[in-house]
Amino acid sequence: MRTAAAGDGDHPLAAAASSAAEHKVNLSARQPFVQALRTGLAETFFPDDPFRGFGWRPPAARAWGALKYFVPALEWAPRYSVGKFKYDLLAGVTIASLAIPQGISYAKLANLPPIIGLYSSFVPPLLYAVFGSSNNLAVGTVAAASLLLASIIETEVPPEENPQLYLQLFYTAAFFTGVFQTALGVFRLGLIVDFLSRSTITGFMGGTAAIIIMQQLKGMLGMKHFTPKTDLISVMRSIFHYRHEWKWQSAVLGICFLLLLLSSKHLRKKRPNLFWVSAIAPFMVVVIGGIFAFLVKGNEHGIPIVGDLKKGINPLSISQLTFTDKHVNTAVKAGFLSGILALAEGIAVGRSLALIKNEQIDGNKEMVAFGIMNIAGSFTSCYLTTGPFSKSAVNFHAGCRTPMSNVVMSVCIMLVLLFLAPLFKYTPLVALSSIIVVAMIGLIKVKEFCHLYRVDKFDFCICMVAFIGVIFFTMVIGLSASVGLSVIRALLHVARPKTCKLGSIAGGELFRDVRHYPNARNIPNVLVLQLGSPIYFVNAGYLRERILRWVEDEENASKLDGQDLQYVVLDLGGVTSIDNTGIGMLVEVHKSLDRKGIRIALTNPRLEVTEKLVLSGYIKDIIGEEWVFLTVKDAITACRYALQRSRSKEDGEV
Amino acid sequence: MRTAAAGDGDHPLAAAASSAAEHKVNLSARQPFVQALRTGLAETFFPDDPFRGFGWRPPAARAWGALKYFVPALEWAPRYSVGKFKYDLLAGVTIASLAIPQGISYAKLANLPPIIGLYSSFVPPLLYAVFGSSNNLAVGTVAAASLLLASIIETEVPPEENPQLYLQLFYTAAFFTGVFQTALGVFRLGLIVDFLSRSTITGFMGGTAAIIIMQQLKGMLGMKHFTPKTDLISVMRSIFHYRHEWKWQSAVLGICFLLLLLSSKHLRKKRPNLFWVSAIAPFMVVVIGGIFAFLVKGNEHGIPIVGDLKKGINPLSISQLTFTDKHVNTAVKAGFLSGILALAEGIAVGRSLALIKNEQIDGNKEMVAFGIMNIAGSFTSCYLTTGPFSKSAVNFHAGCRTPMSNVVMSVCIMLVLLFLAPLFKYTPLVALSSIIVVAMIGLIKVKEFCHLYRVDKFDFCICMVAFIGVIFFTMVIGLSASVGLSVIRALLHVARPKTCKLGSIAGGELFRDVRHYPNARNIPNVLVLQLGSPIYFVNAGYLRERILRWVEDEENASKLDGQDLQYVVLDLGGVTSIDNTGIGMLVEVHKSLDRKGIRIALTNPRLEVTEKLVLSGYIKDIIGEEWVFLTVKDAITACRYALQRSRSKEDGEV
Repeated sequence: MRTAAAGDGDHPLAAAASSAAEHKVNLSARQPFVQALRTGLAETFFPDDPFRGFGWRPPAARAWGALKYFVPALEWAPRYSVGKFKYDLLAGVTIASLAIPQGISYAKLANLPPIIGLYSSFVPPLLYAVFGSSNNLAVGTVAAASLLLASIIETEVPPEENPQLYLQLFYTAAFFTGVFQTALGVFRLGLIVDFLSRSTITGFMGGTAAIIIMQQLKGMLGMKHFTPKTDLISVMRSIFHYRHEWKWQSAVLGICFLLLLLSSKHLRKKRPNLFWVSAIAPFMVVVIGGIFAFLVKGNEHGIPIVGDLKKGINPLSISQLTFTDKHVNTAVKAGFLSGILALAEGIAVGRSLALIKNEQIDGNKEMVAFGIMNIAGSFTSCYLTTGPFSKSAVNFHAGCRTPMSNVVMSVCIMLVLLFLAPLFKYTPLVALSSIIVVAMIGLIKVKEFCHLYRVDKFDFCICMVAFIGVIFFTMVIGLSASVGLSVIRALLHVARPKTCKLGSIAGGELFRDVRHYPNARNIPNVLVLQLGSPIYFVNAGYLRERILRWVEDEENASKLDGQDLQYVVLDLGGVTSIDNTGIGMLVEVHKSLDRKGIRIALTNPRLEVTEKLVLSGYIKDIIGEEWVFLTVKDAITACRYALQRSRSKEDGEV
Repeated sequence: MRTAAAGDGDHPLAAAASSAAEHKVNLSARQPFVQALRTGLAETFFPDDPFRGFGWRPPAARAWGALKYFVPALEWAPRYSVGKFKYDLLAGVTIASLAIPQGISYAKLANLPPIIGLYSSFVPPLLYAVFGSSNNLAVGTVAAASLLLASIIETEVPPEENPQLYLQLFYTAAFFTGVFQTALGVFRLGLIVDFLSRSTITGFMGGTAAIIIMQQLKGMLGMKHFTPKTDLISVMRSIFHYRHEWKWQSAVLGICFLLLLLSSKHLRKKRPNLFWVSAIAPFMVVVIGGIFAFLVKGNEHGIPIVGDLKKGINPLSISQLTFTDKHVNTAVKAGFLSGILALAEGIAVGRSLALIKNEQIDGNKEMVAFGIMNIAGSFTSCYLTTGPFSKSAVNFHAGCRTPMSNVVMSVCIMLVLLFLAPLFKYTPLVALSSIIVVAMIGLIKVKEFCHLYRVDKFDFCICMVAFIGVIFFTMVIGLSASVGLSVIRALLHVARPKTCKLGSIAGGELFRDVRHYPNARNIPNVLVLQLGSPIYFVNAGYLRERILRWVEDEENASKLDGQDLQYVVLDLGGVTSIDNTGIGMLVEVHKSLDRKGIRIALTNPRLEVTEKLVLSGYIKDIIGEEWVFLTVKDAITACRYALQRSRSKEDGEV
């Protein structure tokens, strides 16, 4: 009986009388190789199809379109109006008031002279305004990347020993960051950033915020000595080791500032239209703190201050870039890692703000803009800049309309540099510390952690690995462990794709996973398996084992029912592609099942898969064209018909 | 009109009067976390479910079952019979006659004393017979791994300068190979081998065969000096540089041997039952060549011979393993790379032979067996062994029944070592070279290359990168470039999953890819997209762009037709899993479309995906449970109904 069912060449479709039976899988559809290659490359490197806008216009218009594509300022500048400028002016002044304290704070965080932070808020925003595609992003330095740069460069050149070289390495790292970001954008490799998952970023940002807050204990307690390491244990040990340096005056002032900043933040939550209070609060803290320190001569009474700030705009630093063998590796490493991080933050921020206004931003174009501004920055005494979340959110809420707000901010900073910089000499360090602490607290997203735990335990693990790795080891370790885990998970998804057994529901009309629909009924003599995801060398071995195991289990179950398994229907609807190893696997499965007298039927292969299966001869020479069906229902009808025929033949012979 | 269609909360399903409408997606199915974790781990590390055989038996039987699982010999030995032994004896003697010339040849290929090749055919086969799970595999040294080991170790310790240390590093490498293989098997990491795709192996084997054949030009021409490098250019330069060393006597003898061996191979193809002629041909070549060289005193007349071979079985080499800082890295690297290669060959050979006899072999168990035999081998003067293709195929054709044939071979080799070894002193090197050349020619599979080119251009590239990399650079470069390319391809599959637009066929009953079924008809006001493969952080960004682009294209097309797009149906049937970033992407897509007044409907999410979408609140809070359907048809019926209602409402209002 088995051999009859599996062997003879009846056309089982002749019997499939269902309404869709005349529709068969289109085996002749084929994409020419060149077209398939072009589509593949386009989807890989141009997923957003950036040039679709100007394909059918005359050459001059196309050139202008291309220029506008590369220089977005040409797009918005001609249509700029006084009405828009009013909004951008307000937003620009607001973010400038935030840029001054943040610039100084983050420069201190990176152990750089504070003036570098102001320099970094002058040149890069101007360039971003020309090349950037986001209307909402405000450019500036960021805490996480500042600390990351410091932690890498410190191990090579301690800032106390050789502050000049230390600073030069920051410029050099910014240069490499810029080159690297531009290259990524030009070669359309934005997909590298895709490998930073949301879970990784959440955990990494949370962990970084935590260690940055710990670093601020130095400033809050007015200490002079501190560990260059960032992990929890070293920091705690260092704080208690130098406990004789603690200054109560600093601590009291710090707590006052913290309360002030936190209440301004609270106010913003309660009354969103008072956002400007929290936006200028850091500036107010700096001003109040400075006046206070000046009046009480804080420096002599336990309240360390920033110290001298030179007047004047950015000096050129192009001659300070160091490419000597000895240090260039460190600069490249620091530039690469902080560049990836800065891109991830900048693009994520730009994207989420654009989403609210229903604008589009182009990731690859953004990379080029970031790259250009960092290269130019490294020539003009700036270190790494990107689009920080806090500043961009303030820019957005202040109602910015175009990147012109960055220009306004830049002009404000220029005025400060030219005329007011020396006034910031009296800023107490504790004011900067409290500004950083308040900015960082919001980045430890406990709610998000809980959400992750609830929805996806593995994502939660990835997030926690980053969080704990950053807190207890280093930022690089936390980040790489988390990315590594994500990539392993991605490869495991590929290496162990889900398969499931389908049962019939809706009276035999539909076929669905029996685990998902417990009412689904078994189909006698037939096993329907649904495969998912691409079939290729990574998972071919696994799928062979898995299919054979399903068959074995089904045979055992069938025997108990007194029936025997005669057909295996593979639903390929979810299989997006197949390679040579995968086809080899299907051939092996066919051989194994054939020996047991079990026949394979395929249903609904997709275009790419059909093409390969036809070309390799699998469909024609091995399973036979008549065993490829458009739907599972057709396949089962055909199996039943073939079974009946072979049985009646047998009966006739008996 | 738009807002009405997208906004109001009618239950569109009320209208879906199709036969399957009462069946909805089961939103409450959930796998408990522990169960999901256990299933996940089991599928990842125990894809073949090795212990399923003895789950429900009493403890003693289970212990015996487990012991039999780990020592497969206990499975077949008790049922062994004289009948089977007759077959195994014949097969064992046949493969022994092949093992002698191959052992000597491959040892020479690796610049080792020829006797090591014989040693390596004595101990490892005995151990494999106990622990191995394949009935067909014949154990021995292999050409590719021998050359790979030599090429890595030579760069550290040139064999001419310090032959003793060179040999010790081979033992040490074999030890690390064994440890590494055992560990892979014990920790069930067989999936590492899955990353060697069939295309990589085809190309690598072909390239290796080509460079091994080139290496034989030394022996064929009777040269003394030769380059230690393996690439085509170095070899050719070396051959013509030392052309004064060419010996016509060697060349003539070599061509005779080649013709003899090739004709025996040809005979086997013509008459498969005369397989033994080609199996013992190498041995005959060695014997004839030896007698000839002895008679004409070949060594003095331009026919170099093997030279002295010591009598006696393997000496212990455990004290010769070197773990000094200086060389251990080389040994580990050589052991790791050659171990992976040996595993890939051994497992592939075992699997393909088992397939013909419809037996099962267990990859992880095989790894442990290979590991044990290599560790034991490294203690007893053997270098790396595995299951070579040529020998195993001969074993199979000679009719072996159990691993006992390896024991028979081992005993034969032992007798040779004890009594006959000195006789092989006169074997001409040119005989060994011609044996290797003939063994290698079959590994350059031109037909397979053509097949790959026809079926899959990318697979062909992967194969050619290995082939050309091996020939023009080194074996390691060829292998790693090809594996790297395969992994990038795997990640690209993941990063750029295929999506397609579905149209209706079979009178609106079925929905399929419009590129695949050119007759598929558009559905007015509705865009149906089929997503495939897992949705997660790697591809979430891409999918968002891609979906929005589909929508934009469809909107433009709809406008030409005077209709507007109101619904997007996402067919999730092919999506096997989703992570946190992926859900975030769906939320963003929903927001973007909502702003355009377009509503999203989901159809047929799988179990794992449904679970996550429900837990994250996406289904309930964002798109609404009533917009999740079991089939595309249901979804479209519901969309049409909602559209009609909103239109008639509008008409009423007008």
